[in-house]
Parts: sequence; C-alpha cells; structure tokens
Amino acid sequence: MPKIDVANIPERSGSSYPAALGEPCAGRHWKRLGEAAGITQFGANLVRVEPGAWSSLRHWHELEDEFLLMVSGELVLVEDGGETVMRAGDCAAFPRDSGNGHHLVNRAMAEGVFLVVGKDQPNERCHYSDVDLLYVEDEKGPRYTTRSGELLVSLHATPSPATSGSTS
Amino acid sequence: MPKIDVANIPERSGSSYPAALGEPCAGRHWKRLGEAAGITQFGANLVRVEPGAWSSLRHWHELEDEFLLMVSGELVLVEDGGETVMRAGDCAAFPRDSGNGHHLVNRAMAEGVFLVVGKDQPNERCHYSDVDLLYVEDEKGPRYTTRSGELLVSLHATPSPATSGSTS
Repeated sequence: MPKIDVANIPERSGSSYPAALGEPCAGRHWKRLGEAAGITQFGANLVRVEPGAWSSLRHWHELEDEFLLMVSGELVLVEDGGETVMRAGDCAAFPRDSGNGHHLVNRAMAEGVFLVVGKDQPNERCHYSDVDLLYVEDEKGPRYTTRSGELLVSLHATPSPATSGSTS
Repeated sequence: MPKIDVANIPERSGSSYPAALGEPCAGRHWKRLGEAAGITQFGANLVRVEPGAWSSLRHWHELEDEFLLMVSGELVLVEDGGETVMRAGDCAAFPRDSGNGHHLVNRAMAEGVFLVVGKDQPNERCHYSDVDLLYVEDEKGPRYTTRSGELLVSLHATPSPATSGSTS
C-alpha cells in the first residue's frame, strides 16, 4: 500500500562531517521515506532532532532547492538574517545558490521533527557558513574539503543526507 | 526570510476537470508553497479538503512520482487495494506508472490538510481510474481527453495542480 510504514523504515543517525565538526549533529536522525517507498525524482526525508542537537551545520546549496515542513516540536531556524522559531505546520524553502546558510537548532526540551524535500543535482557543492568546510561532488567523487580545497573526508558507499534531499 | 508566510499565499480552489466531473473537488483548495518561495526543482503544495470533498479524481501518473504528508484532520486514501485512513504525520508515496489510482476523500466533520510534493515532467499523461478521462501533455498543449483521445478541455494559462506536483 502506498501509505508508508514510517515506524519500520531504518533510521540513520549522526553525520559524515569531519570529526569534531559533526558533534552538534550526533543527535539528529533521519529516515529516507521517499526512497523506502520507491520514488526517485526527489528525496523526502523525515528528520528528528534531539534536544540540544542541530539538524546540520549551517549551509547553503549551489544547485539544490530545499523545502521543509515542521511536523512536531519546536526548532529554531538560524540564518544570516536571524532566528525564527518553527512549529508544527510551519514551512520554509531554501532556493539554491542563495548564499544564505540555514540550519535548525533544538533549544527545546522535546525532540523536533520535520520533513525535508530536495532533489540531488550532479556536481553539487554545499557551503558551510560558520566553519571552514565545503562539500564537493564531481568526477573524483563526493567529499568534504576546506574552502581552499584541501581534502578532509572522502565519501563513498552510503550517501549522507547531503546527497539525498536532506539538510546537509 | 525563508520561513514561508503560508497565510498570505493565494489559495486556488476547485479543479479544471471537465464540467460535472469536477463537482466532488469543488471543496478542495491549494497553495503553491514552493513556487511562492522561489523554488523550482519540485512542487510543494498545501492542499485543504473540505468535509465531503475529494482531493482529486482517483488517478495515477505515467511519469511523475508523488509524495504526501498529512498535516491535520483525517482523510481516507482510496486505491485499487482498498482504503486507508490518513491522519497527521502519516505519509504516502505514489511511484509513477504504478497503474494504481489514488485520491483522498474527506468523510470527517473537519477539513483535512496535506502537503503534496511532485516534479513536473514533460509529456506527462495522467490516468483516471473511475471515469473516462485522460490528462495529456504534448506539443499540442495540456488537455483533458476521453481515454480514446476525444478532446474534452484544453488547458492553457494557469496550470492546475495536475501540472505542478499536486494531486491532479
């Protein structure tokens, strides 16, 4: 049946960010709903952020639009322009190449849950606003580098949310 | 700010189905959230279905994957395989070319609201399971025909949800 059995979809946790940079995201978890249901034209991931954790490092995509809808809890959307509290039913969109990094931070006592939708694009680059980090995809494969191009982590096998319509 | 001002996005209502076929959908309303927020790689529409109304005629897409998440209320998902009650947080996905038509029917006393995501594909055709109707897009423009190809309605100007990631 097309109704998705969310409870039984495997959940992934943490991040593939280089070492200590990933610590604030150790308490984020996600399920690839769209993939589990057999759709491929865009990704639709359900992300759960524990109290104190971040949805991702603050970032923006060069080539990928992103859309999110809050499902439950309360998360703080942080961008260049300031902070916005997001509650169930609130939506946000992040057009590609905006140069305005975003992420969601959980400062509440309960977990925050949101749906995020995105579409993989070849040769994507993702910029991180607050740390010396760049996500790069090209013929050498997906990887994290410094802003000046020094290799930090090669990514193979399992794609992270960065490569499938999650929050990078 | 990337948070979307949902209350101030114009809402569209009804359908462009031929005449009487559209009656059950007179009480469906939708807002194009993604479009309003400047994203173009997929559509993200918020759909509101009044008590007694349908989200669409029961249909399936040849070329377009579809994903939905229930935001509030209770709607009944109807497919070839039967019926499933959908409540806030429930998700469903409809892979393209499944041949299994779906729609959401409101049999409750309150409105039902869901987010639907899809990606326009050129030359899409949409099949309606319970009526002699076909949605066709090609060099002649988008239109409704009978299953045997007789023209019923030419669609120009404003695209309906059928052409932008809604529920067709």
